[in-house]
Amino acid sequence: MPQGVPTAVPDDGLTTRQRRNRPLLVVHTGEMKGKSTAAFGMALRAWNQGWPVGVFQFVKSAKWKVGEETALKVLGASDEGGPVTWHKMGEGWSWTRKQGTDEDHAANAREGWEQIKRDLVAETYRFYVLDEFTYLLKWGWLDIDDVVAALTNRPGQQHVVITGRDAHPRLVEIADLVLETTKVKHPMDAGQKGQRGIEW
Amino acid sequence: MPQGVPTAVPDDGLTTRQRRNRPLLVVHTGEMKGKSTAAFGMALRAWNQGWPVGVFQFVKSAKWKVGEETALKVLGASDEGGPVTWHKMGEGWSWTRKQGTDEDHAANAREGWEQIKRDLVAETYRFYVLDEFTYLLKWGWLDIDDVVAALTNRPGQQHVVITGRDAHPRLVEIADLVLETTKVKHPMDAGQKGQRGIEW
Repeated sequence: MPQGVPTAVPDDGLTTRQRRNRPLLVVHTGEMKGKSTAAFGMALRAWNQGWPVGVFQFVKSAKWKVGEETALKVLGASDEGGPVTWHKMGEGWSWTRKQGTDEDHAANAREGWEQIKRDLVAETYRFYVLDEFTYLLKWGWLDIDDVVAALTNRPGQQHVVITGRDAHPRLVEIADLVLETTKVKHPMDAGQKGQRGIEW
Repeated sequence: MPQGVPTAVPDDGLTTRQRRNRPLLVVHTGEMKGKSTAAFGMALRAWNQGWPVGVFQFVKSAKWKVGEETALKVLGASDEGGPVTWHKMGEGWSWTRKQGTDEDHAANAREGWEQIKRDLVAETYRFYVLDEFTYLLKWGWLDIDDVVAALTNRPGQQHVVITGRDAHPRLVEIADLVLETTKVKHPMDAGQKGQRGIEW
């Protein structure tokens, strides 16, 4: 665990305090799904600070991550911590009030991104999880210039955590913290399938 | 994310169902503290299954991980999910009812391990987080043979997640899943110190 001693002091004209509280863009990438798990683990800290947490889940399956979703929703509804809002593309975005269709994933994903941009401008949340967001860029559904501009120009103190494999190089470039989770050993290598309570 | 297709089917005489539900020993290691965050993220899934969750935190500081602790405790006390028991060495183990002393870390840590062994035999929890446990082996406070025997012979369906740097090779050997989180880029490299809501 880093012990809080920076390895370099930048010549950016900021005080330590200003620099310390700079909002972060975090990218969790790598081959394993530990990246989402870690992002939701970070969300626990944000919740504990009383910050409004917004999750945008760019995946279809209702089965994966249902544990994290239930937990964050129970926390958000509790008397402690901050509120939690969970947006899920697979069920149709909550703000559009229409059923999710399988017809046009790209259009659905772009709708999600447009809402994120509106929320960033409005400073709706203090902590964002954009889960599996990297694929939208990988598949060419979003314009990287648009994404970089919206993230780098976001106002106030909004932390953004992005997960997914194969993060776009420019996303890595503008990120403050990039973590990569790799497997050293996995039960599927030994013929074991995913199981309830562990994989979802 | 692995799509549930094993790369090999072992000749172990087990059915797929038996193999699927085999209790796991997971080791989260690597240079970054994402390893604990991911372990607590996994605990959300276990909680959502209604499983009793037991956390043994082998760290002194009260500041780090207070977000995860508060969140898991709120979840454990809610009407949904399973119960959560959080044991913390820094405050003195709850079952000994004495104040934590700084005098003998090794003795305190060994007391924690003895309780874990009792709980494994009694099948007290279904999901264990042994946070920063690797150091107890690294520093020679525990006997690796004793640890390997207790973990490999644990009865029933008890999942165990161990975190910490420099996991002992024999721990890696007996683990089913080993994940390593590495930093690609970290704000401390740019002179930024840890901040509230992000680092703790």
